[in-house]
Amino acid sequence: MPTDVAEKRPKTMPSQAEERVDWKKRKTEIKEAKKQTKEAKLIKQLEKQKRRESAEKAKHEPSPNKKGRAYTVSVALPGSVLDNAQSTELRTYLAGQIARACVVFCVDEIVVFDEYGEDVTSVEGEFKGVGKKGHACIQLARILQYLECPQYLRKWFFPKHQDLQYAGLLNPLDSPHHMRMDDESEYREGIVLDRPNKPGKGSLVNCGMRKDVRIDKQLQSGLRVTVKLNNTQKQESKLCKGVVVPPHLPRTEGDIYWGYSVRLASCLSAVFTESPHAEGYDLTVGTSEKGSSMDQTTLSPFKHLLVVFGGLQGLEASVDTDQNLEVTDPSVLFDLYLNTCPNQGSRTIRTEEAILVSMAGLRQKITAAFTDVSNGSLKN
Amino acid sequence: MPTDVAEKRPKTMPSQAEERVDWKKRKTEIKEAKKQTKEAKLIKQLEKQKRRESAEKAKHEPSPNKKGRAYTVSVALPGSVLDNAQSTELRTYLAGQIARACVVFCVDEIVVFDEYGEDVTSVEGEFKGVGKKGHACIQLARILQYLECPQYLRKWFFPKHQDLQYAGLLNPLDSPHHMRMDDESEYREGIVLDRPNKPGKGSLVNCGMRKDVRIDKQLQSGLRVTVKLNNTQKQESKLCKGVVVPPHLPRTEGDIYWGYSVRLASCLSAVFTESPHAEGYDLTVGTSEKGSSMDQTTLSPFKHLLVVFGGLQGLEASVDTDQNLEVTDPSVLFDLYLNTCPNQGSRTIRTEEAILVSMAGLRQKITAAFTDVSNGSLKN
Ligand SMILES: C[S@@+](CC[C@H](N)C(=O)[O-])C[C@H]1O[C@@H](n2cnc3c(N)ncnc32)[C@H](O)[C@@H]1O
Ligand SMILES: C[S@@+](CC[C@H](N)C(=O)[O-])C[C@H]1O[C@@H](n2cnc3c(N)ncnc32)[C@H](O)[C@@H]1O
Repeated sequence: MPTDVAEKRPKTMPSQAEERVDWKKRKTEIKEAKKQTKEAKLIKQLEKQKRRESAEKAKHEPSPNKKGRAYTVSVALPGSVLDNAQSTELRTYLAGQIARACVVFCVDEIVVFDEYGEDVTSVEGEFKGVGKKGHACIQLARILQYLECPQYLRKWFFPKHQDLQYAGLLNPLDSPHHMRMDDESEYREGIVLDRPNKPGKGSLVNCGMRKDVRIDKQLQSGLRVTVKLNNTQKQESKLCKGVVVPPHLPRTEGDIYWGYSVRLASCLSAVFTESPHAEGYDLTVGTSEKGSSMDQTTLSPFKHLLVVFGGLQGLEASVDTDQNLEVTDPSVLFDLYLNTCPNQGSRTIRTEEAILVSMAGLRQKITAAFTDVSNGSLKN
Repeated sequence: MPTDVAEKRPKTMPSQAEERVDWKKRKTEIKEAKKQTKEAKLIKQLEKQKRRESAEKAKHEPSPNKKGRAYTVSVALPGSVLDNAQSTELRTYLAGQIARACVVFCVDEIVVFDEYGEDVTSVEGEFKGVGKKGHACIQLARILQYLECPQYLRKWFFPKHQDLQYAGLLNPLDSPHHMRMDDESEYREGIVLDRPNKPGKGSLVNCGMRKDVRIDKQLQSGLRVTVKLNNTQKQESKLCKGVVVPPHLPRTEGDIYWGYSVRLASCLSAVFTESPHAEGYDLTVGTSEKGSSMDQTTLSPFKHLLVVFGGLQGLEASVDTDQNLEVTDPSVLFDLYLNTCPNQGSRTIRTEEAILVSMAGLRQKITAAFTDVSNGSLKN
């Protein structure tokens, strides 16, 4: 605070000595000094703005010498997989298995698509209960979101819900952004608190720490934000300090896996067309035991990978029910259509198993794609 | 039947024509003919026996030009993993996940070892119920055996059991040896029936088909056997015909995955020392996030691979409680100690997940080990 206050006062007030004063000259001098101070302030402000802007820019275009991960991995699957569960508890458990499989392999986005054209695109709206068939997409999306949310934020974002009835059975994701109270971390997820805004000061954010965090901006209360905490914090202060950053920064800047976003798609084709990436997905993989063996496949570096799984009846069923698709053979939709488990010992691999199996196989190939063979270092 | 009967009667009885008969000469001729027939029969019998012997030999030493798989894959894990389940239903479900993971990757043997020195080595004996902690090893082994058993044999081998209370929740293994009634197959699992033995005829076996199978041997009723069905069966006959073969034959001769055997081990070291293979396991892999990255590992061809997983506390805990082991670092027990999921996005991978993830990674390396790079064909 002292430095902030100092800035707001002119630093060198002329000493009022006993010598006789030439008031006219004095006035001009004061004016001049004030002008200089004003200018210095302006320059400082401009510099600050510039720094902020370039930081902002860096967030969106991570510089290549940063150690972060630039690419993203998305997984898509039909919500109907929940309907294969044999009990209402297992329906919830299955959603948890999918969440964990995606987290183990650092998946950044999970797309839940509707195989039956029920046309739901948001988790808002009334939910008809965990036991009923149907509404599987909404239910899966909601459980995925619930699990992704750090425990200390759940009471805000997930008030009692029927579809979270069996949430106690869910295994925790144990991902890096699920911090305990005293964990040290450069980044934290938080919720903007509903406190009166002091002019010129940023909002307060609950980041699951002992102290709340004063951020750099005034934001609407209730927002979930990613906060980058200042390197040095005052022990004696009642608050921590931090800045709001885009949620991808922990990944692109720090190579820290930061959970996944969840997206609902009303049909298989919407998985592709409604990509959150302006350029779309530049590598798409369909999975099927009828695909070509992944053993003969190598990957090239990509920006946004999409891996799509089918439900009980495979991707054929998803293609069949999609009114936007004229094709019947799913393989034509993808850059690669892969059998990720040649010589499987079971007639069918369940979707929740196929995610672990396929991503384990793809992980090796992704690593190879981004590793410079000449020196074993990462290229990005 | 006609050919069998013909063999038992001399083929050319002399015609009793009207010419005068030299009875002395005739007698000698008949004697000679009988002798020849007897000799022919003997030769036939000897040839049959020889064929049988060499077939028997072939079973144990599959010839290299057969298309079968000669190597075996074993997986070991502590029964204590069941104690991580959050409900009694999920305890059963978890056992099913393990069974399925092993079947997907054609695992031939599952070894359940005791981390806590409870010293159980058989699934016989009283079982204290599915809900209780402890007895996890027996319970896991029993559920694994139940699932491996073809459905049509379960009523014989698995009468009502408390630990199979939630068996209805288990997902089927859908492995090739789980046949439906009318499936055509060269091999089938069956149970020797309790029917009066007719001298000179083999026992009857129920192989889950519309007809029972007459096998080549008389065996004790209640035995589970692997039967190789004769190539041609008589449509009109009331029975099928087949021979009893060792259970590995479908794999070694036909490259068909034929389920797993289950073994209980009283501690981690017994997993190694009580191998069913005379020569033991010739490639052992320990799994841990503290192992070296599997990405830099290649495998050489092996005969008997063993892959060992830890429980909640990892293999360190299994080593600690094993009174036969002086070491504390598990890595020294194995040929390879591998991290099968470098850069995992969750702080811990659960054992049931680790099986799918690790076996998916190893599958590629096993395939590579047995593939002749020069021409892409299988070496064995
Ligand atoms: C139960 S399977 C679908 C089986 C369906 N009968 C078929 O023929 O595709 C569910 C999903 O798991 C994935 N899957 C199963 N086996 C696979 C394999 N060997 N390779 C790649 N993906 C597989 C696919 O995404 C599939 O749509
Ligand atoms: C819950 S984990 C054990 C974690 C334990 N804290 C440790 O440090 O080993 C259970 C088992 O899953 C397997 N596992 C988990 N992560 C693994 C990885 N990255 N690579 C290989 N195996 C892993 C190991 O067999 C491990 O013993």
